Amino acid sequence: MTGTQLESQIRFIIEIDKLKNILRQTKIMDGSRRENDSEHSWHLGVMAVLLSGYANEKIDVLKVVKMVLIHDIVEIDAGDTFVYDRPLAHSPSEKEQKAAERIFNILPQDQTKEIMALWQEFEARETPESRFAAALDRLQPILCNIKNQGGAWKEHGITFERVIERNKHIAEGAPELWKYAEKIIRNAVSKGFLADKDLK
Amino acid sequence: MTGTQLESQIRFIIEIDKLKNILRQTKIMDGSRRENDSEHSWHLGVMAVLLSGYANEKIDVLKVVKMVLIHDIVEIDAGDTFVYDRPLAHSPSEKEQKAAERIFNILPQDQTKEIMALWQEFEARETPESRFAAALDRLQPILCNIKNQGGAWKEHGITFERVIERNKHIAEGAPELWKYAEKIIRNAVSKGFLADKDLK
Repeated sequence: MTGTQLESQIRFIIEIDKLKNILRQTKIMDGSRRENDSEHSWHLGVMAVLLSGYANEKIDVLKVVKMVLIHDIVEIDAGDTFVYDRPLAHSPSEKEQKAAERIFNILPQDQTKEIMALWQEFEARETPESRFAAALDRLQPILCNIKNQGGAWKEHGITFERVIERNKHIAEGAPELWKYAEKIIRNAVSKGFLADKDLK
Repeated sequence: MTGTQLESQIRFIIEIDKLKNILRQTKIMDGSRRENDSEHSWHLGVMAVLLSGYANEKIDVLKVVKMVLIHDIVEIDAGDTFVYDRPLAHSPSEKEQKAAERIFNILPQDQTKEIMALWQEFEARETPESRFAAALDRLQPILCNIKNQGGAWKEHGITFERVIERNKHIAEGAPELWKYAEKIIRNAVSKGFLADKDLK
């Protein structure tokens, strides 16, 4: 590592600016354009603060907020993968693993360790904080897709069954949020935002 | 208030999606386009986590993160004001005050109170957390303006003296960050990204 600790931190802060150019499949709620990863991560951060009371278990809110703010940084190198294109039992791809190593290692060593551990914990989804963070990460695009009248769902021919299958783990982190999500997903079908059968 | 507590929270989460369309004068670091408030707020959230060790006083990091994530939400109604167009002794405009009341009141009452108090604390800049949050809020656009070779500074004819005057309060929240910022601002002059005299 060259330079001071602060210089390493600033290099990292500059590097992650690229997240503002990583586009997701989901559109922002007014439907005008695709959302980027930094916008999505900000939204999750606010949701973590406001919805922490719905977590299934006692959680460390700061840890959840940190997790959601950094969870997509690997996509700077690895790109965004549409959630419906991922295998259900997800573990980080080799590309994502390499991205984490390259990007997080820009930080001073103790912070590399902290951020790497947070990312791995998020991905593994085995702790109360990561299960809750994952619930938020799934709920936010559902809200987007419903507000923009089915945007990414329609574009990709996603059906009700797949939305349920792919998002039901929200219940593991926040049962009441899943109950709510299920209700609005069903409602989206009746409004014509989401197909209830595979139309392909 | 109609509906459940969760419905109010979701209404707020949907409302603040509009922050993704509030453009700042600052461009993202590659200079390709203007940054929006949600991207800026995300960046500050990560910076709060990584740079908390530079705070002048003992701070509650979660409080700082909450503050920076919500500090610009009022701009949904009030619009963004370029920092160089604001009076130096800043207090919220009537428009911003009204925006805070409309938007934060979408939340359940206890959270309206919490978020309103956080925003007012940020604006007043009288506590360790708000002084540190304000330091980050000033440092981030300096990094953007330097990375994109003077973008918003050049566009608006901002000079070295004004950048120093407008940002020196970084020292109140984080002296070492100000020392660093001053160095890179001087460096920006020598690189031609920032005028050292008023050229108008």
